[in-house]
Parts: sequence; C-alpha cells; structure tokens
Amino acid sequence: MANKDGKYTTIHYQQYLELEKILSAQTLRSEQLQTPAHEEMLFIVTHQVYELWFKQIIHELRSVLELFKTQIVGEGNIGTAVSRLQRVEEILKLLIAQIGVMETMTPLDFLDFRGYLFPASGFQSFQFRAIECLLGLPNQQRLTYHNTKYNSVFPQEQQDELDKIYADGTLFEVIEEWLERTPFLKLNGFDFVAKYRQAVQQMLQQESEAIQASEYLTEKEKAMRTSMVGSTDTYFQSILNQKMHEQLLAEGKKRLSYEATVAALFINLYRDEPVLHLPFCLLMNLIDIDDLLTTWRTRHAQMVLRMLGNKVGTGGSSGHDYLAKTARQHQIFTDFHNISTLLIPRSSLPKLPKDIKAQLSFHFTADS
Amino acid sequence: MANKDGKYTTIHYQQYLELEKILSAQTLRSEQLQTPAHEEMLFIVTHQVYELWFKQIIHELRSVLELFKTQIVGEGNIGTAVSRLQRVEEILKLLIAQIGVMETMTPLDFLDFRGYLFPASGFQSFQFRAIECLLGLPNQQRLTYHNTKYNSVFPQEQQDELDKIYADGTLFEVIEEWLERTPFLKLNGFDFVAKYRQAVQQMLQQESEAIQASEYLTEKEKAMRTSMVGSTDTYFQSILNQKMHEQLLAEGKKRLSYEATVAALFINLYRDEPVLHLPFCLLMNLIDIDDLLTTWRTRHAQMVLRMLGNKVGTGGSSGHDYLAKTARQHQIFTDFHNISTLLIPRSSLPKLPKDIKAQLSFHFTADS
Amino acid sequence: MANKDGKYTTIHYQQYLELEKILSAQTLRSEQLQTPAHEEMLFIVTHQVYELWFKQIIHELRSVLELFKTQIVGEGNIGTAVSRLQRVEEILKLLIAQIGVMETMTPLDFLDFRGYLFPASGFQSFQFRAIECLLGLPNQQRLTYHNTKYNSVFPQEQQDELDKIYADGTLFEVIEEWLERTPFLKLNGFDFVAKYRQAVQQMLQQESEAIQASEYLTEKEKAMRTSMVGSTDTYFQSILNQKMHEQLLAEGKKRLSYEATVAALFINLYRDEPVLHLPFCLLMNLIDIDDLLTTWRTRHAQMVLRMLGNKVGTGGSSGHDYLAKTARQHQIFTDFHNISTLLIPRSSLPKLPKDIKAQLSFHFTADS
Amino acid sequence: MANKDGKYTTIHYQQYLELEKILSAQTLRSEQLQTPAHEEMLFIVTHQVYELWFKQIIHELRSVLELFKTQIVGEGNIGTAVSRLQRVEEILKLLIAQIGVMETMTPLDFLDFRGYLFPASGFQSFQFRAIECLLGLPNQQRLTYHNTKYNSVFPQEQQDELDKIYADGTLFEVIEEWLERTPFLKLNGFDFVAKYRQAVQQMLQQESEAIQASEYLTEKEKAMRTSMVGSTDTYFQSILNQKMHEQLLAEGKKRLSYEATVAALFINLYRDEPVLHLPFCLLMNLIDIDDLLTTWRTRHAQMVLRMLGNKVGTGGSSGHDYLAKTARQHQIFTDFHNISTLLIPRSSLPKLPKDIKAQLSFHFTADS
Repeated sequence: MANKDGKYTTIHYQQYLELEKILSAQTLRSEQLQTPAHEEMLFIVTHQVYELWFKQIIHELRSVLELFKTQIVGEGNIGTAVSRLQRVEEILKLLIAQIGVMETMTPLDFLDFRGYLFPASGFQSFQFRAIECLLGLPNQQRLTYHNTKYNSVFPQEQQDELDKIYADGTLFEVIEEWLERTPFLKLNGFDFVAKYRQAVQQMLQQESEAIQASEYLTEKEKAMRTSMVGSTDTYFQSILNQKMHEQLLAEGKKRLSYEATVAALFINLYRDEPVLHLPFCLLMNLIDIDDLLTTWRTRHAQMVLRMLGNKVGTGGSSGHDYLAKTARQHQIFTDFHNISTLLIPRSSLPKLPKDIKAQLSFHFTADS
Repeated sequence: MANKDGKYTTIHYQQYLELEKILSAQTLRSEQLQTPAHEEMLFIVTHQVYELWFKQIIHELRSVLELFKTQIVGEGNIGTAVSRLQRVEEILKLLIAQIGVMETMTPLDFLDFRGYLFPASGFQSFQFRAIECLLGLPNQQRLTYHNTKYNSVFPQEQQDELDKIYADGTLFEVIEEWLERTPFLKLNGFDFVAKYRQAVQQMLQQESEAIQASEYLTEKEKAMRTSMVGSTDTYFQSILNQKMHEQLLAEGKKRLSYEATVAALFINLYRDEPVLHLPFCLLMNLIDIDDLLTTWRTRHAQMVLRMLGNKVGTGGSSGHDYLAKTARQHQIFTDFHNISTLLIPRSSLPKLPKDIKAQLSFHFTADS
Repeated sequence: MANKDGKYTTIHYQQYLELEKILSAQTLRSEQLQTPAHEEMLFIVTHQVYELWFKQIIHELRSVLELFKTQIVGEGNIGTAVSRLQRVEEILKLLIAQIGVMETMTPLDFLDFRGYLFPASGFQSFQFRAIECLLGLPNQQRLTYHNTKYNSVFPQEQQDELDKIYADGTLFEVIEEWLERTPFLKLNGFDFVAKYRQAVQQMLQQESEAIQASEYLTEKEKAMRTSMVGSTDTYFQSILNQKMHEQLLAEGKKRLSYEATVAALFINLYRDEPVLHLPFCLLMNLIDIDDLLTTWRTRHAQMVLRMLGNKVGTGGSSGHDYLAKTARQHQIFTDFHNISTLLIPRSSLPKLPKDIKAQLSFHFTADS
Repeated sequence: MANKDGKYTTIHYQQYLELEKILSAQTLRSEQLQTPAHEEMLFIVTHQVYELWFKQIIHELRSVLELFKTQIVGEGNIGTAVSRLQRVEEILKLLIAQIGVMETMTPLDFLDFRGYLFPASGFQSFQFRAIECLLGLPNQQRLTYHNTKYNSVFPQEQQDELDKIYADGTLFEVIEEWLERTPFLKLNGFDFVAKYRQAVQQMLQQESEAIQASEYLTEKEKAMRTSMVGSTDTYFQSILNQKMHEQLLAEGKKRLSYEATVAALFINLYRDEPVLHLPFCLLMNLIDIDDLLTTWRTRHAQMVLRMLGNKVGTGGSSGHDYLAKTARQHQIFTDFHNISTLLIPRSSLPKLPKDIKAQLSFHFTADS
C-alpha cells in the first residue's frame, strides 16, 4: 500500500525493528572479564524485555491521560481508554508470567555473575517509577528503603522528571475529576444518596426482624447476629456521611473525594444500564491494574527471596522484606476496591425513576 | 442475611457444595482390580473437572441464547451477553491450561490403567457435543471418524437431545438474526454499501497511481504490485455483491447471510462510535471463542499423540490425526474472522453523516 | 485390552466418571427460593472444582509421604517424589489461574445470592486444611481469626482427623529426616562445614582487600562497603555455628535442624554432581510449592477484597486483612528459602576430593 | 563484590542494560509520516521482545549443542542440558501468551499503519529461522510459500549462515548420536529387542484369548477386536524390525535411526531406574519443545487470520493458510512422539537382569 503521499517506502523487517541496535545491546560483564557465566544473558534479556514493556505501558497510560485531560470526555473516549487499560492489564499478566522464566536461573547460577552488577539494582528502573507516578502513587505513601527517598538512586534530572510526571496529573486524579463531573448525585430531582441511605435502612431493618423471627437460631446466635447488623448500620451511616468522609480525607485515611465516591458507587450499582457499561469497565480496569501490580510485587519479592535469601543488610531490612511490604503499601486504587463494602443486593436497590432510566439508555432505532 | 421470606437457613460449606457426592465419585478401576495405578486418580479428577466446567459453559450459553431469543434485545442485554461470553472465554483458557496438568502423567503411567477404561473415550462426552451444538456446529461440517456419525456413541435419547439443541437455535443463528435486524444497511438514506464500495475503489485507484509514480520500484515490481491491486479489486467487488454472496451460500462456501455480513462489517468499521462498542465486543467474543476452541483441540490432539502415539487403527486414521484435523474443520465463526479481509484503513472510510453519527451516540448530559 | 483376569469390562465414559453424581450436585439455593441468581452456578462449580483438585493434591502428598516413610528411600523414589510434587505445582498454578474465572462475577452479582450461603465460608474447606497439615504447617504458626482456633469451624471428628494428619508425619518432617540421614556432613574424612567456613573467610578477606585497593571508590564508600563485608562475616559465622542454630530453634526462629540445614546447603552447592540432581529438584519443589501457595493466598485475598470490600467485622479484622496476612505467615518451607542466604559463588567453593566426587557420579559404562 | 581481578567496577542499571539503545529503537513510521497510529508502538515493541527472546533461545540451544558436541557427555552435562531446554520451554510459553497482548490491537487499528510496513514481514525473522535450523528442521521438510525457498527473503550472507547452522549439527542429530552411543541394545548379554518382542507377543496372545473368552461381547464385537489385536501385532513386528526401519528411513517416512529408536524406547520403558531419569527428561524436552512450537504456530496463524482475514493472494494461498499448515508440517521430533506407539504396560515389561539393574543405579552409601 501507499503511504500518505503516495510514496512507497520499501522496508525490511530487520531495519524496521532496528534489530541491529536491539540485538547488539547484550554485553556480558562476565565475558568481558573472561569468566563467562552462561546465565548472565538471561538476566540481561529478561530485564530488557521488562523495560520494553514498561515503555509500552507508559505509551498507553500517557495516551489515556491525554484523553481525559485535553479532550471533552465522550463515550467514545471512554471506550478507547478502556481498551488501552485492558492492554496494560494483558502486559502486566505477561510480566508476572515472565518471573517464571527468570526463576529457571538458580541462586548459584546468579552468584556466578552477581558480583559484576554491583551496585546496579532493579530499584534503578526509571520507567517503573514513572509508571507508579503516572498511575498516581504519592511520594508520601511510598515505603522508604533504609531511610532514603525512593528516587535518590536517580540523577537529579530524572528525579525532577518523576516529580513532574506526578505533578502533571495522574490516572487517579483524572478519573476522580471525571467522576466528580458525572451528574449522578442529583439527577432530575432524584436524590440518589438519600434514596440509597433509605434503602440501606430498610434492608437492615428487615434483616433484624428476620433474625428475631427465626426458628433456627439460638438466643445467643440471635444476639450475635443482631449486633452484627447494628455495626453494619453504623458503617453505612458513616460512609454516606459527607462530613465524616471529609474528615477521613483530612486524616489521610481516604483519598477519593466524596463526590467521586458517590459517583463510583452509583456506577457500580446501576451498571446494567447501557450508558454505564463503559464507565463500569473503566472502574474495573483500575482495580485490575492495582491487583496485577500487587501480584507482580509479591512474585518479585518471592523471586528475590529465592535468589538472595533473607539476609538482613546494614540498613536493617532485607530486599525481600522491603519488596513484600510494598505489595500492599503501594496499592493505589484502594478506595475503588472499597466501593464493594458499600454495595447492597439488587433486590434492595432503589428503583430509578423512568425519565432517568431513559436518559441512561441508547436511543437507537432505524427510523428515529 | 435473610432470604426472601426472611427465613434464615444456616448451611455449611460441605453441604452447600454437596461435597459428599463430589468427593465420593472417584472409583479407581485399577484399585478395584487390585492393581492400583497411582495416576488413575488424576485421569478421573481431570475429566470430572472438565465436565464441571462444561456444565458451566452450557449454563452461560443457554442464558445468552435466551437473551437473544425471548427478549427484546436492548443494549443492556448485549452487555450481559458480552460478560457471559467473556466468562466462557476465561473458562476455555483454563481448560487449555489444564492439559498441562494431564501431561504430568507419562504414557507409561497411562498404560498402567488404560486397559480398564476400554472402550470409554473422550468422544463420549455428551456435554462437549452439546456445547458444539449450542455454538452452532452443523452436523454436515463435522469430520466423521471411521465413517460413523459423531453421535453414534451415545444412546438414542442423547442423540435426539443433541439434535434438539441444535434445532432450537444456536449462537450462530441468533447472532445472525440480530445482525440482520440492525438498521445499518440504509440509515436515513445513507446507503452504506454503495458508499463503502466507492471508498474501496478510490483507495485502490490511489494505490495504483502511487505504484506507477514510484521511483523506488522496478518495472517488474510495478507490474506485480499493480496486479495485486487488481486482484484485491476483484475480491472486494465479489464480496459486496449480494448475488455472488447468495451463490457462495448456496455452494456452502459461506454461511453468514449477506445482510448479517454487511452489518458485521459496519460494526467493525465504525466501532469507535459509542453505540457500537458492545456490538463490536460481541463479535470479538465469537472469534475469541472459536480461537480458544481451536487451541484446545490442537493441544488435546498433541496430548493424545504424546500418550498413545500415532498408531493407525483399523479405520485408517489415528486418534491424533482425527483430533488435529477437527481443530480447523470444526471452526464455527469463520465468516466472522473473514470480515477482516474486507476492512479498509480508517483514513479511507466514508464519513458518517452528522445525523447518523448523533444517532450512534449517547444523549447523556446533566441537564438534558 | 484385557484386565488382569482376562475379563473385559466394557464401560462408558459417563459411568466411569460417575457423571450422574458429579453433574447433579449443583443445587442453586437462589433457584430453590425462587429468586434465581445466574452467577450462583459459577460459585458452586468453581468451589467444587477446587475441592476436586484438593483431593488430587492430597492423593499426591500422601503418596509422597508414604515413599519417605515406609520404604527405603532410593534414588528411584526421589524421582517419583519429584514428579508427583511437580504435579502438585501444576495443579496449584491452575488454582491460581482459576481465580480469574471467579472474578468474572462482579460484587453485585455475588450479592444476589450471598445471603443464602450464610454462614458457609471458604474457611470451612476441610481438604484445604488437610493439605496445610500434610505439608507441615504447625498449629501454633497459624494466624487466629477473631481469636478462634482455625479448626473450630469443623465438627469434632474432623478436628481430630486434622490433628492426626499432622501428627502422623508431615512433608516438612520426612524431608528433614531424609536430609539428616544423608552422609554429607563428614564424607570420608572431608569435613564439609569446616572447609566451607574456611572458603567463606577467604572470600570475605579478598573482598575486603579489593575494596581497600579500589581506585574507583571514595573513602566513605570504602568504609561503608567494608562494614557490609563485616556484617556478612558475622552472619556466616552465626549460621554455620551449631550452638547458635540450636538456640534459634529453641526460640522458634528456625525450624529446620542443624544437620538437615547443612545437608540442604551441601545439595544446593554441589547440585551439578549427577547424584545430587534429584535431591536438588526435591528441595526446589518445596520452595515452589510454598511460593505458589503464597501467590494463591495473595490472589484469594485480593478477590475477597474485590467482592466484599474491606468492611471491618465485629472481631476487629476483615476477611481480606486476615487472608492477606496468612500469605506470609503461613509459609512452611521458609528455612529452605533461606539456604540462599548461605550460598557463595562457585568460584569460591571448596573443591570436593576425588574419591568423594567419584562417589557422587554414576558408574555407567557398557562393559563395566 | 569484587570481580576476578579484585577491581570494583561500579555500574548503573541503565548502563548495564544499555537502555539508551534499547529504548531509542522504536521509530514509528506513522509518526514520521505525520499520521500517528497509536498501535504502531505495540507492534514494534512486541516484535522486538520476540527477537530478544529468540536471541536467548539461540543462546541456550547453542550451549546445549556444545555440551553434546565437544565434551564427553556425562550425567552432569545431561542435567545442564535438561535445565537449559526447560528454560527454552518456559520462554516458548511466554511467546505463546504474548500473542494475547498483540491481539488487543484490532484489525482496524492495524490498518492504520500496515501500509507503512510493506513489504516487511514476520517471514523475515532471521533468528526464528536460525532456531528452526538449530533444532533440526530440514530444508526439504519446509512448506514452500508461493514456490519460493523459505530463505529467499534474506540477503545471500544470511542464507549462507542459515545453511551453515544446519550443517554444523542440529539438536536432532546430536541427540540421535548420543542415543546411538548408549549401551542399551545388548547389555551384558541381555538382548533387549528380542526380549521385548517376546513380551509384546505374549501380551497380544493374552488379549486375544481374553476377547474370545469374554461373556460380555457379541460375536461381531469379538471379531472386530480380534482384528484390532492382529493389526497391532503387525505393527509391532514392523517396528522392531531393523530392515523395515531402514526402508522407512530410505523412503523419508522416518528420520531417527534404528539404534537411536531402540535406545529411546528403552529409556521410556525403564525410566524409573535412577540412571535413566535425566535421559528420560531430555527426551521429554524434545517433545515439549515441539508441542510448544506447534501451539505457537497455531496461535500465530489464528492471529494473522484475525488481523488480515483469509484473502487469497496471487500465489494461491493466504498467509493464514500457510502458517496453519506449518504447524504440523514443521514438527521436528515426530519420531520421538511416536515412541509412545511402541510402549506396553509396565506389568508386561521384561524384567531387567539383576546385574543390569545394579548398573542403572547409583552406588551411594555413607561408608562406601
């Protein structure tokens, strides 16, 4: 086929992929030092593959941020964002699987060349840190390693770039803002939060009565379960209470704004409405990506334990310990996970008024 | 929580899952005959797991058929259908991975109890045949094994049931009908096929000119490429030609109706329009399921080769050969795969008129 | 083929697999109560599949224990043990992948029938607890949930059975005993531990000198690195010291005996010797199984978070929190992971005397 | 740690991995031509990752060839070969999984930049062809594409290199030679082939008698099964017959020499003997690698069908068709798969004489 200007540019696979560069970038230190260690190739190739995928993930995340930042977010954009975040998920799955390849190297194989790497370390992957920043991991949430700032291993220039990436707006932020812009709080006079709180009350009331009326439960069991319903009640009240929410935000125990939380709840509850299908997919993407990163960190920590054991360094904590702890500490979309805590069964859901339901559907007929 | 009638029915994990039944259904023939073969347990458990997943797949497929058959198909239903078909995909991936577990048994291990199974065979999985029927594999497309009908291994009652499942309407058919019902052929006077044919012509014309004008190509290369453009031209003409299409249908070389094909093409081309997002996902589901089944059949054939070798039986073909051939022969949604052949670059696509574009979007604003 | 007595017993796939039992064991509570919830089938099938695989894992673990307990452990047995533990690994990989299928159910789908399950819970899987006992997870290491013993959810009979399984000898114990029986501590007058300690000293000495001689390091860096070498020195000394080891055992900070630890170290270091190939595979199996269980627990905890959120119950900790913590707390073969901490590069390894090396090789010639 | 000469060479992750080269090798044609296509990055990165893994596979295969070619093959080497071939398997699994990432690009996305690639094609991967040559795929077995030699897409220099790789000795050949060197045909006067033929006769005789004696079979079924036993008889006779084997070799219907086939059969049958454990693993590696390549080819063909459809080119066959056919045609270790056809149950196996059994065990005792 012709290119835009009608010019044919014939090109060979090898040149197009710049394979000369790619395939000449494996310099084995152990060979240079005349003590060739067979497994050093695997070590280099695996890490280069990681970095190539990191580049791809960054490409996708930047484009999604762009969609949310500079353009009016229409449904088409959300579809595109969802597709691209799903691609990020597929890549993350591959990165997790890839650890299995690395583990075909035994600790003793690794020791054959480990000395030559000193002090290079996976902590020094700039792109991985960039991904964390793009997603929205705040500096203050990061676990410190031996009391040094996570990015002190980078030259100043790269430190600044990481700060800039974070400051320029993260996935967490653009999604939060998009959620806040959605009109789900008060739709045509339908006060969602009030109706929802009412539905919750009713549901809990019925539960209490059912427990009392039950012929299968002992008095002790009845008391225990009634108390559980009670604490659920307290929980729901505190959550749908804007003031309390603001206080938890102030204390750093929550991160997602009240409006965004309510909008996310609405999307989760009424996701069967056509217009909410893609928004719901988008929220699922965030949870999926968080979970995949958690799995990757856990697997990575396990691999480090396997390769190096759990030797405690001068700083007081081992590499394995540190990495294992980041698995939970560095989760970014926890508040989205926690939406599940707020859900109630479909059968207890407040019904949407007809006009709002119509608004959430496609108008899609041949002759309309 | 209380059930519908406010009655609590306390239940234990073990009873709920009917584990007594499930976990007492592994009777090792080799043990009964006092020649215990350790691997027979793996053989039984693996196949039972297959059958459980088959039941789940049937549960999903039946529910999707129901959505398309008895209800008005709204966008909500399509979202549900897409989710359930995606679940089928996830299960199929697991079934493929599961072959790896079976392969931890070596051929010699298998021979320790294989004699006791005679003549039980995987061909006798009623549920697997039911899945093929539900998806829409026609009897006449099935490869025969030693000249016997595929379902002759079942009692008459089950044969009838399989025929009934197929006759009652398959996934292929309900999707075809749904596509035929879509209003994409002539939207508000926008004759999609005519416009599309025109766009193709223009694209090919430009390509021809570009080839002639190229300074990088030899005369011989120019001739070769011009002829390729020519054959592409012929191809597109034949495809968007209803009469030719009908003839291919009559000859059994195609299966999907002309109207459905055009609708599927439209959905593929304009899938960025919000209203087409879910329909596009649905078409992708069909292709994914077909591909996963092909992979499963290929892997399964490989496993049989590994276990039993390629011994040619009295009927003239080995189990491996037969299974390997079904991998391609039993593909069901080939016509959907072939839509790709018809696509042209977005830059050459006919632009949709404004009113049609509006029709394909959500009307979704805070104050509307 | 004929069975042992020359009798043919023809059998059909369906009967052999007892499919009538297997496929009739899915009773949807939600259907019984006339509020059918589509996803309840998935919930039941997934858990039944888990239990089938658990049964298979138990079958493998019991057979491996048998190999180590009642028979003289020859190399043939180790080969068999390795194959069966590898099968357990493949099954665990499948169980991890299977979580992805469960996650196609959304929290709201789950709520449609969750109430009917009450109070059934995954904590009530007897077979999973049996697996933990067979592997060797001690009761005192288990995290308590709301201050109740892990097995209080089972009837007394099953509690006793779990205790008995643990008491009858676990994988941890039989491997420990087997390691203690190996003759690697003092082979023909070759005192491995003494030689090894010497090699470590020499290696560290060389490192110190290299640091001092380096022209690339600042004085500050030299001091830092010398101190690191120093702490490594202390570490190695403490580890290969039998008295200190016994004390750590007494304090519950270690679990593997001194003799077994040294044998495991020997196998890791000299695994290239033919006779040590299978023993090394066996040790790797333990680590792999531990890692896979950790990954499964982590993924499972994530799924619970996704389904139910992080609601804190009356007992003060959420289901997710509890499960996430068990991921690390319930690791069983930690001491085997930690062997890596003790390894030194092949180039620093003490050479084995010729007669010992010969002992560790096959004598395998055509005319011998 | 210090390097060999006691010199510290401090190095940064970024330099060690030559990331500047790696991460600057993605030049999007579509961007150069000012029609940026988002998915072109994915296309480039995915292929670069493929090529990096290909390099790693070549690294492993070359080292395995070296082990078999230049050194005396001891058991230690076989252990190393097995580990490295298992690594190749893990990488191939990743390459298969990676197709899923590529498939997140839709056909229409691909068309946005496909024109710019012309005529670059995956057929032009030199490294992939090198892998096929290293494994031992003969030129004459390769499917031709449009009547052109597979390597005509490469410059003469690379064509010569591929020929040289094949001529220098392939994995198929070195394994065949190693098998021929094994002393399993006549061990201390134990004529394995004769004993085996005898055991087969006896087994078949028993089967025939059992069929005749059966009270469960009709006369017709008896006749059918007796004829099957007969054809099995013919089969075994032909196989263990050296003359017939030589003829099949001459006709190109077999590739593995008679001696190597018998040795491979011996290893399969007596793999429970300690000394045969690793040789058996090695033979399994060959089958696994073949199977994984088949799966990869099948998946790749499916992806091409999905992206480009099944348009038949001027040469008469589509890309998809060609690739799908290579899946079976390009299998290399078919003769090793077919060993399974020759196996008989353990219970019918000729017992090894005591002295030979001893020869196949380790001599491994504390006081020896």
